[in-house]
Amino acid sequence: MRELFELRGADPELLFSPYCWRVRLALLHKGLEFHSRPLCFTDKTPLACSGQQLVPVLRDGDSVVHDSVAIFQYLDRTYPERPLLGAGEAANRARLLERVIFQALRMPLLKILVPRVHAVIAPADQDYFRTTREKALGSTLEAFADPEAGAVQLRQALAPLEAWLADQPYLDGDSAGGTDYLVGGLFFWAWCLGTQPWATDSKVGAWFQRLLNHYEAACGPVKRAETSGQEAA
Amino acid sequence: MRELFELRGADPELLFSPYCWRVRLALLHKGLEFHSRPLCFTDKTPLACSGQQLVPVLRDGDSVVHDSVAIFQYLDRTYPERPLLGAGEAANRARLLERVIFQALRMPLLKILVPRVHAVIAPADQDYFRTTREKALGSTLEAFADPEAGAVQLRQALAPLEAWLADQPYLDGDSAGGTDYLVGGLFFWAWCLGTQPWATDSKVGAWFQRLLNHYEAACGPVKRAETSGQEAA
Repeated sequence: MRELFELRGADPELLFSPYCWRVRLALLHKGLEFHSRPLCFTDKTPLACSGQQLVPVLRDGDSVVHDSVAIFQYLDRTYPERPLLGAGEAANRARLLERVIFQALRMPLLKILVPRVHAVIAPADQDYFRTTREKALGSTLEAFADPEAGAVQLRQALAPLEAWLADQPYLDGDSAGGTDYLVGGLFFWAWCLGTQPWATDSKVGAWFQRLLNHYEAACGPVKRAETSGQEAA
Repeated sequence: MRELFELRGADPELLFSPYCWRVRLALLHKGLEFHSRPLCFTDKTPLACSGQQLVPVLRDGDSVVHDSVAIFQYLDRTYPERPLLGAGEAANRARLLERVIFQALRMPLLKILVPRVHAVIAPADQDYFRTTREKALGSTLEAFADPEAGAVQLRQALAPLEAWLADQPYLDGDSAGGTDYLVGGLFFWAWCLGTQPWATDSKVGAWFQRLLNHYEAACGPVKRAETSGQEAA
């Protein structure tokens, strides 16, 4: 029995957490089936088994692992076939890439996505989301959100990936690997929230489309929000 | 006979190119001795053997290699002991880290260092530097330079490295590797131009000091410029 506790919107089929998408992509890479346990932001009780309060949490038999990178490491230890991060320097560098690329992309994407997240979650979650994010951002959601500026900053931040993907189809080279999923989760976040703030005719756009096509071929269509998030802007 | 063609200032002992520093650090890592061939920006003739005009160029017996990352790959192929990039995913991820971190750090550092470079190079080089950089930057050197803003942006860009180095002494983990030298070259650039625009009591500052101490223990003191670059600002 393998279960993935992951974030959902008001619609239980709408999954949009970038960290949870990383794990979905990793489980597909390993060929491991699982039961989805979609949870609202405020539905913390089922996470108690992990000793903390954030998704994703993977329960795999007697093992309970939280944090997307820790889950990748757990999957590589437990199911060594088709490595995600691999070992030694390869694993170390994948984790450092995650840190650096996450730092570069997160704020631009947040500026675009904050109103969209607010719009798709249940009313009880909206208070939680506003309180936790406004505290972390030091700003109201409305003052922080700036989709136009975010889109400009995102394209600048994507420049090295765009150049890299002109020379090989995936961040990890000829085939998708752990780095692709760690970064790709951020793109699924935007996609599921109904936007695609990168140029669809870019190398980055084509790379995301390959990850999405691969996922949908195996798992079926990905549910997307239809909202523009305008009501929260 | 192994020769490294590298960039010099008006003072032939002042070496400040970040790309050339990468190669010096890599050659030390491999334990390979070499003759330095310091060249001014405008001294292109000795580079003709490489079929292009930019330093660093490594001539190693019959092999001539340019571009710092290509030199790292050449050194790993030719001298496999003590890998810099390593093979497979490890090498791939080191190259992607170089792209992403270079993109994050270069512009902040340039805003700090442009006046300093201009101040330390020979008069004939100053025209070359101004013409090529003003064309690339789309701005005069004076309008582009902004050491205060560059320092603020640099500290933001260093945040993921600062967090990473709180958990391990080097970017590549327990000991310095190719990633440390590819990034470290950018820090030697600033250091040799007489500035250190990162917090010396930070994790990043301590990491750079470890690289510098290791280098100086093996190769002697690193020549630094004494100028503040004010005359070009």
